[in-house]
Amino acid sequence: MGCDVPLVRPRGQGFDTLAWCERGFLRILDQTRLPGEVVELTCSTVEEVARAIETLAVRGAPAIGIAAAYGLAIAASETEDLDELQAAAQRLRGTRPTAVNLFWAIDRVMARARQEAGRGGWAEAILEEAQAIHREDREMCEAMGRHGAALVPKGARILTHCNAGALATGGMGTALAVVRVAHGQGKVSMVYADETRPLMQGSRLTTWELMQDGIPVTLVCDDMAGFAMARGMIDMVITGADRIVANGDTANKIGTYTVASLAARHGIPMIVVAPSTTFDLTLPSGDHIPIEERAPMEVRAFGERATAPVDVPVWNPAFDVTPAGLITAIVTERGVARPPYRESLPALLGGSRTSQ
Amino acid sequence: MGCDVPLVRPRGQGFDTLAWCERGFLRILDQTRLPGEVVELTCSTVEEVARAIETLAVRGAPAIGIAAAYGLAIAASETEDLDELQAAAQRLRGTRPTAVNLFWAIDRVMARARQEAGRGGWAEAILEEAQAIHREDREMCEAMGRHGAALVPKGARILTHCNAGALATGGMGTALAVVRVAHGQGKVSMVYADETRPLMQGSRLTTWELMQDGIPVTLVCDDMAGFAMARGMIDMVITGADRIVANGDTANKIGTYTVASLAARHGIPMIVVAPSTTFDLTLPSGDHIPIEERAPMEVRAFGERATAPVDVPVWNPAFDVTPAGLITAIVTERGVARPPYRESLPALLGGSRTSQ
Repeated sequence: MGCDVPLVRPRGQGFDTLAWCERGFLRILDQTRLPGEVVELTCSTVEEVARAIETLAVRGAPAIGIAAAYGLAIAASETEDLDELQAAAQRLRGTRPTAVNLFWAIDRVMARARQEAGRGGWAEAILEEAQAIHREDREMCEAMGRHGAALVPKGARILTHCNAGALATGGMGTALAVVRVAHGQGKVSMVYADETRPLMQGSRLTTWELMQDGIPVTLVCDDMAGFAMARGMIDMVITGADRIVANGDTANKIGTYTVASLAARHGIPMIVVAPSTTFDLTLPSGDHIPIEERAPMEVRAFGERATAPVDVPVWNPAFDVTPAGLITAIVTERGVARPPYRESLPALLGGSRTSQ
Repeated sequence: MGCDVPLVRPRGQGFDTLAWCERGFLRILDQTRLPGEVVELTCSTVEEVARAIETLAVRGAPAIGIAAAYGLAIAASETEDLDELQAAAQRLRGTRPTAVNLFWAIDRVMARARQEAGRGGWAEAILEEAQAIHREDREMCEAMGRHGAALVPKGARILTHCNAGALATGGMGTALAVVRVAHGQGKVSMVYADETRPLMQGSRLTTWELMQDGIPVTLVCDDMAGFAMARGMIDMVITGADRIVANGDTANKIGTYTVASLAARHGIPMIVVAPSTTFDLTLPSGDHIPIEERAPMEVRAFGERATAPVDVPVWNPAFDVTPAGLITAIVTERGVARPPYRESLPALLGGSRTSQ
């Protein structure tokens, strides 16, 4: 995609959450401004990329990995010193602790950098690696969509939490790739989007993204999910993931555990969709996943509008862990894993993946 | 309380959610403006009282019953025609469908009105009835606090949903009366307040009310409740109720069912606190409780700040039903009921209560 095509096209003509401009910078659709405003950020330094990740201008486990990879490509265009690139990598690693794709992408680009150090064409090679990560992510989204759609029954009413869509990946999403492919097959009758407090990725992003593509969506508050299930309104739950460990325990956006618990109570399938880059088979269980806690002001206010006393204490974990026992199936680009995950995941993914 | 004492005194000196002024009008603390602004509404017509109930300026099952009773007292000061008073009662009945206290209070005042029709001192008698409802509610709050506090263990960390406090009643609350008495006994180490989307009665009201009284409170988003329980942070859940039917099924603020489901999963006691005016033993089960659905804009925006695409479809039920099987105990002013409720409730409440 050229540097001059807008990231967001008219409804029905798609959008990109990020794009590399061959003039040497990363273009990011600023997700903190959606759905009210479509604003494009230009990142031409590592620091700008790091801040875009920290402020959630770019978010979603796969997308932040891609953004970090491009951040290193920017750094490599300015220095051929491996130590300086390492410092850039450290800055990017420090942005967000939970999603493993970030560390995976940085590790992959740094491995290429070490390989290419001292050779000609270093900057080009590193950019090529970042672009490969981006392209492969797009392909993985398509494959996840295909595998996952086979699990969706005709007429499905699907609940999703947070945004695991095109906005969160380099392609058409993880959970929402499944929704897109199943919708293309005429099987989706309604998507219910949990609003996903405190940052409202469901109400701000998932609704916007699905409406952009003409897929039927209804917004509900997080505390309505249980009643919707009790009323028989939901046939399946589909979410993304930020880190999946060896036994299948899954870290994802705060609230996923609540939704998974409710799904189990109502006998509703709970499907997690994530590319192989989201797996961290070095950790035995979810207890070992670091959980990011974010600032109290995210909960005390929405934008400039206060929603609570300014000095009220707040607990604000950004993620929770859903135990494997609540997850019906995990969809990856390589196929579908079923319990017991300690056996099915290595078989599907082949070999272990490393953590930070 | 005189007409000139402010409804909200400095922190530590309490507040009243509503008060009758002997000059002939009802004073209401406008809960839609909390916690940012302390604004007092003056209602001197039935229509103003009805609108205050509809807009949630006054809310909470017991408080709207009291407000409606005072609304009839206002009407009775302007007419001695029973049909005209009946029309006022109809206007007030139409404000909100789920909480039964509203219908109970209106029925009680109208019974008194029929008794007094044609006699001298009609307006005074009807005002006296409204004031009796108000006073008795205050006494019931104290009794519920006493009975409920006996169930609270030392060092308790209590999760509550919505606001079932002094703001929702004529006294110190239902669920929060239990919290207040238990706190006075030194047994409460922390109250976790669910923010309670979409109208944020937890973040706006419960936090404000507890901070006003110096009770420790931490705000969490609704989708964090499950993870807090999984982390062992919660010892018990205490909520109010809008209508409790013969088998113990309980309608309360949307999200209560989700919290109750999570409590059951984690083996955490779920306590419902409500005065006898909240019971409707004429309905056999929760399936028969009418559930109010409110406007989509409550979910699409917070105040003037949009949180979703302006045209996204929304499902916005204001209440849900928690099945009796998830409720550990029901605390009333007459004592504590335990399952099976179909036996324990009539024994405790004596005789059946009528519905609208």
